[in-house]
Amino acid sequence: MKRARFLADGHVRNGHLNAAEDRLVDDLGRAFALDAVSFLPPVTPRTVVGLALNFADHAKELALDQPAEPTLFLKPVSSLIGHLAPIHYPDQAAFLHYEAELAVVIGRPARRVDAKRALDVVGGYTVANDVTVRDYITNLFRPPVRAKGWDTFGPLGPYLVDRDDIADCGALEVRTWVNGELRQQGNTDQLVHSVPKLIEFITSFMTLQPGDVILTGTPKGISPVKVGDVICCEVAGVGRLENPVLAAPVGGPE
Amino acid sequence: MKRARFLADGHVRNGHLNAAEDRLVDDLGRAFALDAVSFLPPVTPRTVVGLALNFADHAKELALDQPAEPTLFLKPVSSLIGHLAPIHYPDQAAFLHYEAELAVVIGRPARRVDAKRALDVVGGYTVANDVTVRDYITNLFRPPVRAKGWDTFGPLGPYLVDRDDIADCGALEVRTWVNGELRQQGNTDQLVHSVPKLIEFITSFMTLQPGDVILTGTPKGISPVKVGDVICCEVAGVGRLENPVLAAPVGGPE
Repeated sequence: MKRARFLADGHVRNGHLNAAEDRLVDDLGRAFALDAVSFLPPVTPRTVVGLALNFADHAKELALDQPAEPTLFLKPVSSLIGHLAPIHYPDQAAFLHYEAELAVVIGRPARRVDAKRALDVVGGYTVANDVTVRDYITNLFRPPVRAKGWDTFGPLGPYLVDRDDIADCGALEVRTWVNGELRQQGNTDQLVHSVPKLIEFITSFMTLQPGDVILTGTPKGISPVKVGDVICCEVAGVGRLENPVLAAPVGGPE
Repeated sequence: MKRARFLADGHVRNGHLNAAEDRLVDDLGRAFALDAVSFLPPVTPRTVVGLALNFADHAKELALDQPAEPTLFLKPVSSLIGHLAPIHYPDQAAFLHYEAELAVVIGRPARRVDAKRALDVVGGYTVANDVTVRDYITNLFRPPVRAKGWDTFGPLGPYLVDRDDIADCGALEVRTWVNGELRQQGNTDQLVHSVPKLIEFITSFMTLQPGDVILTGTPKGISPVKVGDVICCEVAGVGRLENPVLAAPVGGPE
């Protein structure tokens, strides 16, 4: 099942996609046309754990050594937006790029989980775009919060796809198009650290809660985007996440 | 006023300290002896922003160059614990240390806040111990989530002290004692980036929400602690946060 959170008629609703009819059905059975809703991130995590350099070809593209262990960072939950919501391009940024990723959503509290049983704690999958300003990645402390933490830099969705609907999370094509042009391509079979290994590593020191998200890393193919571009990130079988890039509003909150 | 969240008689309660009587009074007026409650972190942030190297003497002690701009990291909310709760010493860690810090608690939504008006968005202050395993700080990616993100590595409290009760957050003594021995000492007048400057910098790219926390950085004086030690972190006028160090439980969640 493809689950969604969305705003329609002034209410936040939980529901699912009725693909045959191209409609979202909320938990009370009310149906909405897809273009009559605003998508929200399909989950509300307390913690979003990101992976740096989890595709060998991406590490090579950045001319960085591949660390032996998973290299984690945290993405602030304030950065999350849903499908079709705008990514705001920071005024002063020279190089903003997308990173298409398989996002793993935790289904139950998880601590000290062995890789062999790790998929048991997965609730489902969605698509993430780990938007990044390359400019700020200049010193020892990386990736800096300011590179990946801007409001709107965490598109997630459109749907949470149930775990059992994905036969093998280690064999999914990952692609990004910018204005319809294919820019990034990879497959989760190239992950340096597999999904089960990531869950084992992260839960070796911290508790993950239901709704928490692991961004599993991005393949080779980053390139700059600019205001007016539309980014579409796809994980095959999980979904296509599309977001336009707009100028950041001036003054006040996003 | 010194506000607290605590567990008493099986309920989580919000209340305040009646210092004259040495009691906690919940919002319904019920009073509890301090030793009859379990302290919880006084706030429930969505985001905890930490500062690396925000005291020049601490950067020097680590033999690191002082970055020109504030150097941020995120502490997972899963790491937070209250006053007197145990810090769990990871089995394999060689060098675990405390970091006493002034913690700034945000009082209202904040984005693009000028330093001149930054204290307007502060709700209050508390004390943090930014517990860290030094072992894992070995590669380019720092501070790694695994160094500062373990369950129990985020003691916070005991109290949230109202902003207006602190005359000047830029002139507060910060000290740590281990088993009663003074180990760390500094003053927030030595912060490389002041509290208003930190708020300006962080809200230049992300929205802070009420309850969110900024850990403002730690002075010189880190040293290893071991199982059985008791760490007491103090920010003068804000509080004394005490936590014992215990062996981590084996298997299962914390």
